[in-house]
Amino acid sequence: MSLYASLEQLRDACLNLPDGDEIAALEAAARQDTLTKPPGSLGRLEQLASWLARWQGRDRPKLDKVEVLVFAGSHGVTARGVSAFPAEVTAQMVANFAAGGAAINQLSGMAQANLRVIALDIDKPTVDFTEQPAMTETELLAAVSTGYSAVRDDADLICLGEMGIGNTTTAAAIAAALFGGSGADWVGRGTGVDDTGLSRKAEAVDAALERHASALADPLAVLTRVGGRELAAIFGATLAARHHGIPVLLDGFVCTAAAAPLARLAEGGLSHTQAAHVSAEAGHRQLLQTLQLVPLLDLGMRLGEASGAALAINILRGAIACHNGMATFAEASVSGKA
Amino acid sequence: MSLYASLEQLRDACLNLPDGDEIAALEAAARQDTLTKPPGSLGRLEQLASWLARWQGRDRPKLDKVEVLVFAGSHGVTARGVSAFPAEVTAQMVANFAAGGAAINQLSGMAQANLRVIALDIDKPTVDFTEQPAMTETELLAAVSTGYSAVRDDADLICLGEMGIGNTTTAAAIAAALFGGSGADWVGRGTGVDDTGLSRKAEAVDAALERHASALADPLAVLTRVGGRELAAIFGATLAARHHGIPVLLDGFVCTAAAAPLARLAEGGLSHTQAAHVSAEAGHRQLLQTLQLVPLLDLGMRLGEASGAALAINILRGAIACHNGMATFAEASVSGKA
Repeated sequence: MSLYASLEQLRDACLNLPDGDEIAALEAAARQDTLTKPPGSLGRLEQLASWLARWQGRDRPKLDKVEVLVFAGSHGVTARGVSAFPAEVTAQMVANFAAGGAAINQLSGMAQANLRVIALDIDKPTVDFTEQPAMTETELLAAVSTGYSAVRDDADLICLGEMGIGNTTTAAAIAAALFGGSGADWVGRGTGVDDTGLSRKAEAVDAALERHASALADPLAVLTRVGGRELAAIFGATLAARHHGIPVLLDGFVCTAAAAPLARLAEGGLSHTQAAHVSAEAGHRQLLQTLQLVPLLDLGMRLGEASGAALAINILRGAIACHNGMATFAEASVSGKA
Repeated sequence: MSLYASLEQLRDACLNLPDGDEIAALEAAARQDTLTKPPGSLGRLEQLASWLARWQGRDRPKLDKVEVLVFAGSHGVTARGVSAFPAEVTAQMVANFAAGGAAINQLSGMAQANLRVIALDIDKPTVDFTEQPAMTETELLAAVSTGYSAVRDDADLICLGEMGIGNTTTAAAIAAALFGGSGADWVGRGTGVDDTGLSRKAEAVDAALERHASALADPLAVLTRVGGRELAAIFGATLAARHHGIPVLLDGFVCTAAAAPLARLAEGGLSHTQAAHVSAEAGHRQLLQTLQLVPLLDLGMRLGEASGAALAINILRGAIACHNGMATFAEASVSGKA
């Protein structure tokens, strides 16, 4: 069963987004100016404290319950030779997640976050979107609902990520469909394709753009026609977090592309998210700039799995440790500016 | 008592630097290529694992014992009106560190690092270096020794930072003396001076460069004449870490300038360090580029106190969590590249 009976019900949910708690954000900013440091000297950490305050609705934010959600899906477009790894790696990596052997297991553990991996029909790939829509509307709504329902409303922060061989091609198709440009503008080497593979990726995206041209003005149709189940789930989780008042760390290129339709549907639709990092995947920097998201980290990572998001959790923890724990000038009897 | 009886003894110590464990670094890099991820997809985290392996001398690095060392000093050049805050704030902040109220207390705690604050004669400012050498050679050697001795040889990682009203002017003078340019090329707003204060900082640096011109070809003379006690201590701690085989995270502009003479004295003298972040202080990005250090974080911070270094600790923890904890392709039965 899907939470939404139709694309139009889902669209309504996307157009009615809460704005966060302006008062909590202002109170947090005011507190920052009383703490024992030159005003503004903690830079982005100060802004992050206010951002967390706004989206958690409390002037002293907390990060006790941090969830990492990794969605996995399979992609029919892998038939086009768009990945350096065989399609069965998606299921093998889901098993690796369960066994605790992947990067995200280590990074979630390091950040004291709860990791959940949600596989979406990985034995049933989406349709090759160069030929037909990747999903039916029913399939899209089911995947969005899975993502939405995965978000527990008592979380303090959600980190989103994905696993799906072939999905950097999917992400490039979504980015091109939403923001213009051709396949070559958005594809990258993914898990490590050579020049021929890169050309195949661009061709697949261009073929999809042509095939679905008449439908791509609607961001939800983009997600249906050239998306994938794990991307739809990320979209649903991003929407759920906004409705529940939970800030979000987005991971890399695929994750950002998955959330992007919300920014196209509603002004400020991604205000409750931060880009955890900018990936080495070619299209990500451009996509973040288009969405006016400024990444927290720039470490040349391109793994996915929410790995960049998990690594950024402790940046946020640092921000609130300072915000909640520092003494004020008055408390510490430190002189102010001369 | 100083560890070094003369500048020449100290210079000898700076010219005899171990190169780290090449074998451990290579073994770490080889292991990275077997882990369940596309090769290179953890980006900088993979390089950090090898870097830690080299400088710890073990192919599976650890970060169990992380030390944050903050050195504090007072600066005669504050008489020139170079800071937005009064000089007594140095002692007040040292008290705030002791009471646990400063940013670095929160960030060290968050990163499970042991914080020690070492105040160097803060009731006795260095001489105003626009008029005379900031320190005598005896004072320099004492401060270097204090920093050197503060490094415990069983540490897995050292984070270095400072507190000292006026010391961004000192750092700018060191940078200009070591790498050329005038005061205006290296000064910034520090704790928040206005345009007039910024001009006074540039003028103070220019006056110092002129006053000491005949001596500034020697990096150790630079540290003596236009340095400060906490900067000399950071220099000593950086040297000690190299001798003991301990990797170092450098904090911001002042910390980097303090360590920079080691790079001028010996090729690769800062190879055992990483720039934890690039500060918003104007000269830092240029100084890092000159030293070929690529910062881990770029978050607009400009507080000092080792705050950026402490925040970067968990980036390194993430790197070794993946390095030590991930399954290999063989262990997890994941297929390799197609």
